[in-house]
Amino acid sequence: MTYQEAAAWLRQHDRYLILTHKRPDGDTIGCAAALCAGLRRLGKTAHICPGTGETHLFTPYLEGYLAPEGYEPETVVSTDIAARSLFTREGERWLERGIDLAIDHHPSQEFFARETCLEADSAACGEIVYDILRQLTPLTPEMALPLYVAISTDTGCFVYSNTTPRSHRIAAQLMDCGIDVAPVNKALFRTKSAVRLAMEARMVADMERCDAGRVVVMQIPLSLRQELHATDADIEELSALAAQVEGTDCGVTLRELRPGTVKLSLRTGPRVNATEVCRLLGGGGHAAAAGATVSGTMAQAKSAVLAAIAQVIGPLAP
Amino acid sequence: MTYQEAAAWLRQHDRYLILTHKRPDGDTIGCAAALCAGLRRLGKTAHICPGTGETHLFTPYLEGYLAPEGYEPETVVSTDIAARSLFTREGERWLERGIDLAIDHHPSQEFFARETCLEADSAACGEIVYDILRQLTPLTPEMALPLYVAISTDTGCFVYSNTTPRSHRIAAQLMDCGIDVAPVNKALFRTKSAVRLAMEARMVADMERCDAGRVVVMQIPLSLRQELHATDADIEELSALAAQVEGTDCGVTLRELRPGTVKLSLRTGPRVNATEVCRLLGGGGHAAAAGATVSGTMAQAKSAVLAAIAQVIGPLAP
Repeated sequence: MTYQEAAAWLRQHDRYLILTHKRPDGDTIGCAAALCAGLRRLGKTAHICPGTGETHLFTPYLEGYLAPEGYEPETVVSTDIAARSLFTREGERWLERGIDLAIDHHPSQEFFARETCLEADSAACGEIVYDILRQLTPLTPEMALPLYVAISTDTGCFVYSNTTPRSHRIAAQLMDCGIDVAPVNKALFRTKSAVRLAMEARMVADMERCDAGRVVVMQIPLSLRQELHATDADIEELSALAAQVEGTDCGVTLRELRPGTVKLSLRTGPRVNATEVCRLLGGGGHAAAAGATVSGTMAQAKSAVLAAIAQVIGPLAP
Repeated sequence: MTYQEAAAWLRQHDRYLILTHKRPDGDTIGCAAALCAGLRRLGKTAHICPGTGETHLFTPYLEGYLAPEGYEPETVVSTDIAARSLFTREGERWLERGIDLAIDHHPSQEFFARETCLEADSAACGEIVYDILRQLTPLTPEMALPLYVAISTDTGCFVYSNTTPRSHRIAAQLMDCGIDVAPVNKALFRTKSAVRLAMEARMVADMERCDAGRVVVMQIPLSLRQELHATDADIEELSALAAQVEGTDCGVTLRELRPGTVKLSLRTGPRVNATEVCRLLGGGGHAAAAGATVSGTMAQAKSAVLAAIAQVIGPLAP
């Protein structure tokens, strides 16, 4: 489905429930909030599916949009959800019932919905939602601000290699709506808690380099989180750090979610296709940024990901 | 002089020498390189004034543009130079002879040149040079890439509060020229040497907070540089770190240039006008980012800058 078709489809339906993915990021939340605001502007009933109750950096953008208890939607739409495994617990209920429309930009999209609007060349799902909303309604600040959050977070504030001229043009259009992006940029990209700074320092001190320094592995064991009393917000986006070390084109971050479960994140240059590596481990994502959740200890997860990298690019240098 | 008038003026002159400021950044170098490429495209003779021989992150962008020994220009243009004190040693010679045109975006511009094209609402001098070049010639990648460097560095890759819709629109136009910004973004904004990461960790460990945490002071003593064998590139832009600590709206970085000489950098929120503070110390800059070079020890410099901050915003909380 093209974005024009998705817009026409959205105009024809009503009583929306919008789903975001688990461990939500700015793109899924921003898309859901903007779409919800846009559909309401069209006179539709629209709500966002409440998550598991966790708070995160993007919770404020959901304010006023969460579905009241007992809300019975007619139309269920997912934003930025690539795979069945990424539904929240609350969202899984709707997956069983059937998703009506998936709006997404991940090449690893599983086509779990009846209709799918997929543009895999979009830097953020927010770019697709922007194009859809422009077909439906004049943009208001209520739509523009969360869309800016969506696009800026998925492009690392226009620094990642997925950023296109279109990303910049949409950002300019959104800013023209009169939104003030300075506090957003400051909060999302230029603020670190003292705890986070301490975590980064420890991750740097304990990092391991292999493949002649081109692969850097950083670890966030549960014990480190506990020692520094780190919250979820303190460790948001920490997976970008490993790829920043000079000489690296494959940054691996291992984060112990709970004993026996490790979340892997890869940020890579053109030499290493991150999606291919993570697919071998049951995950997915983009060529330059992908992830997977694996069972085992941190050491086992490290061995598994290094083996998967070697399977994709060939043996690693000692 | 408007940018249209500057373009007409540039068309009328020839045999250009372009000056950059000392301790060069991406904006001054990027503007000089783009302007030099554009003037040559017009059939003019144009060169960039060699600096003091130091190499820096932006040296590669000067390749092919530096004036040969004995070059006698007719027209001297400065890019992104706000004050007489910011001329390089080589440039000071030309300051005495007289600068013909200054292109700049600093509100603290001293109007040292015969003609000045100043647009103080531009995020980067590169935005002004972009507008000038568009009047003169079709943009080529040789102009677009250094202009992207100019604008992206002065906006911190579109994250600082000086970023406007115009910054994004120009970025999109530059990318449309077919330049590949991914390696630029990776090198300038997503790469840190292991030494730099170690320096950051030390600056974080030794940081001081005052005014109830709203003012953060970080220090880069010469001894730290020497201990970690840090190069100029390792400490580039380290002054952004202090302002990133959560709860801060005034990040101060003190960097010992040599014994008895300290460079101050301020990055501030709306509460603290950085230019006003730095003007009290003989420096200048923008409201949200300014600097000054003072005589004295690190401790004296710290006292001086805290006193200047208090003079501007009132007494600091204990």
